[in-house]
Amino acid sequence: MKLASLPHGRDGRLCIVSSDLAWYTPADHLVPTLQAALDDWDAHEPLLRALATELEHGAIPRERFHERAAAAPLPRAYQWADGSAYVNHVELVRKARGAELPDSFWHDPLMYQGGSDDLRGARAPITLADESWGCDMEAEICVVTGDVAQGASAEEALAAVRLIGLVNDVSLRGLIPGELAKGFGFVQSKPATHFSPVFVTPDELGAAWSGGRLSGVLRVDLNGQAFGRAEAGEECTFDFGTLIAHLAKTRQIGAGSIVGSGTVSNRDADGSPGRPCSAGGRGYSCIAEQRMVETIEGGKPVTPFLRYGDVVRIEMVDAKGHTIFGAIESEVVPA
Amino acid sequence: MKLASLPHGRDGRLCIVSSDLAWYTPADHLVPTLQAALDDWDAHEPLLRALATELEHGAIPRERFHERAAAAPLPRAYQWADGSAYVNHVELVRKARGAELPDSFWHDPLMYQGGSDDLRGARAPITLADESWGCDMEAEICVVTGDVAQGASAEEALAAVRLIGLVNDVSLRGLIPGELAKGFGFVQSKPATHFSPVFVTPDELGAAWSGGRLSGVLRVDLNGQAFGRAEAGEECTFDFGTLIAHLAKTRQIGAGSIVGSGTVSNRDADGSPGRPCSAGGRGYSCIAEQRMVETIEGGKPVTPFLRYGDVVRIEMVDAKGHTIFGAIESEVVPA
Repeated sequence: MKLASLPHGRDGRLCIVSSDLAWYTPADHLVPTLQAALDDWDAHEPLLRALATELEHGAIPRERFHERAAAAPLPRAYQWADGSAYVNHVELVRKARGAELPDSFWHDPLMYQGGSDDLRGARAPITLADESWGCDMEAEICVVTGDVAQGASAEEALAAVRLIGLVNDVSLRGLIPGELAKGFGFVQSKPATHFSPVFVTPDELGAAWSGGRLSGVLRVDLNGQAFGRAEAGEECTFDFGTLIAHLAKTRQIGAGSIVGSGTVSNRDADGSPGRPCSAGGRGYSCIAEQRMVETIEGGKPVTPFLRYGDVVRIEMVDAKGHTIFGAIESEVVPA
Repeated sequence: MKLASLPHGRDGRLCIVSSDLAWYTPADHLVPTLQAALDDWDAHEPLLRALATELEHGAIPRERFHERAAAAPLPRAYQWADGSAYVNHVELVRKARGAELPDSFWHDPLMYQGGSDDLRGARAPITLADESWGCDMEAEICVVTGDVAQGASAEEALAAVRLIGLVNDVSLRGLIPGELAKGFGFVQSKPATHFSPVFVTPDELGAAWSGGRLSGVLRVDLNGQAFGRAEAGEECTFDFGTLIAHLAKTRQIGAGSIVGSGTVSNRDADGSPGRPCSAGGRGYSCIAEQRMVETIEGGKPVTPFLRYGDVVRIEMVDAKGHTIFGAIESEVVPA
């Protein structure tokens, strides 16, 4: 089942979207918003699934689904917590900042609490006040949880995954060092986060969703050129069950919480940090990684951070080349 | 006007509470929840105020208000961001961790993004899985905002303050150093946060609310003994307009966002970190400060962190000795 929210009020209007993303049917006569559906998932899911089946069969009135018309599936949420499952990314970005990677990072997930009061739809622009802030994309996988008890195990936490989607965790690289030096994590350096047009239930992914990890190539394009083609199922040190359990260690988690994987990142086959797509490699899911590799190889970064007019596109396709979540495609514009 | 939420579903049922906290009348026939009221404040506020006036005059049916029956005014919120307006507290706590205070902390607010999916009512217990985690209270002031534009000035941000209340920003001191060393801020070391029974509109506070700062003694009791009597209006380096504008620098803020002051803290009259209430001082709004002063004076901390059965009470009274927000009174219990 694939779910989207069309713009309506602050929380959107819940819709079911066909598996091929061609059609939708409103679901707000069953439950008005995705948050409301998640609040009582056991009651709503069977009815929504029945509607999804009818939509697939063309048995009910349906309308063309346009990704550009979708709000974020959750236009605002009660929690957005982002992990760092791909430790290769963490190692590279820290190298770029001149910071070492502690060995514990391979065992104890890194996670930050993000702002969740303004979650952007897949075609919303990235509103940037100052190009010198070093705006970067971070292409990631995310899950939406049901309720999770305080102290839940990774297995219990994984069972609470309701939906899966894509994220652009926009980051302001120029503001990060100063903010992290203050010791309290990200506030200004993480502006509004962007989400894929649809979130999907785990069964929709078949074998690609296994053990709390999603397999598939995360396609990141910058201005129409391939920038990243990382395989999300590889080198994913922490599965989502482990990430959610990390968050739940000292407090319960409310339904509708969004948990991110951190920037998807692969090493090269030879163990090196990876080559750009233009050089035949898998590229990168953020500009910071490419700049780091450029620094290692040539002494200084070459690729600039995002500038006004740049367009970032993030998408994942299935084995047949069909889009799974739709694409996040955002232009950077002045705030 | 004073507002509370009685337990009902996930978001409570909105009520108006009399100024003396003796009576309430349901307001959910006007707007079901406090979040919904904040989502369209300009439309709802006049109707809620009319109801509040009728309640004060005894002109409508009313029922006894019991603080113990109240949920958090916002049982879940789209944002909880906590500042550190009282730099004296930051300096002391960092000293306790052996960290210096950068001079910039006097000009650039420190702020962290907290979890907001589980906000606890004023009599909810503090559910702690492990006493060795060093559970501590942090007594604070908070405000609830309307919408704030990206890049808003401090003046614009201050104009968006809708409500004011009290917070116990429960902290797990034993988990903080390890978590902060990872660089991404607090996740596990900040469990669920507790809120006063009512939030109040700025006009309810009279002259005590001025320039984005609240004046008044923040009364913190531990197991029935005075622990803190700090004056919230003194040594408050950053007013709430400045704190909210800090948060809004790179992204807009959604209605119903809660912003905290950080632990209220005063120096002693002689400039020293302050004496315990038992020694005639103003005491402390968290145990960590008292332990730091003990370490400075005697070489090691004496006061233990919270243990099962301990009761923390946080309250502010007006010039006549009447409670303003009601009291947060929480017992620490095993999770």
